[in-house]
Amino acid sequence: MTLPELQALIRETYGAKDASRGVEGTFMWFMQEVGELATALRNGSAREKTLEFADVLAWLATLANISGVDLDQAIAAKYGAGCPGCGKSPCACARAEKP
Amino acid sequence: MTLPELQALIRETYGAKDASRGVEGTFMWFMQEVGELATALRNGSAREKTLEFADVLAWLATLANISGVDLDQAIAAKYGAGCPGCGKSPCACARAEKP
Repeated sequence: MTLPELQALIRETYGAKDASRGVEGTFMWFMQEVGELATALRNGSAREKTLEFADVLAWLATLANISGVDLDQAIAAKYGAGCPGCGKSPCACARAEKP
Repeated sequence: MTLPELQALIRETYGAKDASRGVEGTFMWFMQEVGELATALRNGSAREKTLEFADVLAWLATLANISGVDLDQAIAAKYGAGCPGCGKSPCACARAEKP
């Protein structure tokens, strides 16, 4: 699945609800799922981790949809030409450097 | 770009650093970017929002990489057959329900 297909899938399934909820309400849902991902990463099964990653990614796609952001273009703009810090791939930034 | 291509791009660029940082350290980087996304969503320009979405998605891909999770399979498993709550697309869950 491509990133545009992901955004379209989430828009098709939840677009009507998403548009009326707004950014603030959607961000709270996103954060709830981030919390559940943290729980799964600490002591969840492989399946639990997988499903929580799906939820966080789905809510990130919703946030992007209602914010008018194209995730595919975003990744290309920031990471399409190597690390945004050092311009290389693999990244050659110092370990303490972001990222 | 497909989700496997996204995970491969991030692995190629940051895989060596990611493997040695571990889940806890990576989760803190992810959360820092989530905070920056919140700031951009509140009062950032379109470009700032785009770049912060890219960072959150990149760190989510890193977390998935070091956790052995395939984001493409995760989305298919959770959202590939309609809303996981009601089984329909568009979702027909009550508005207060977890969508």
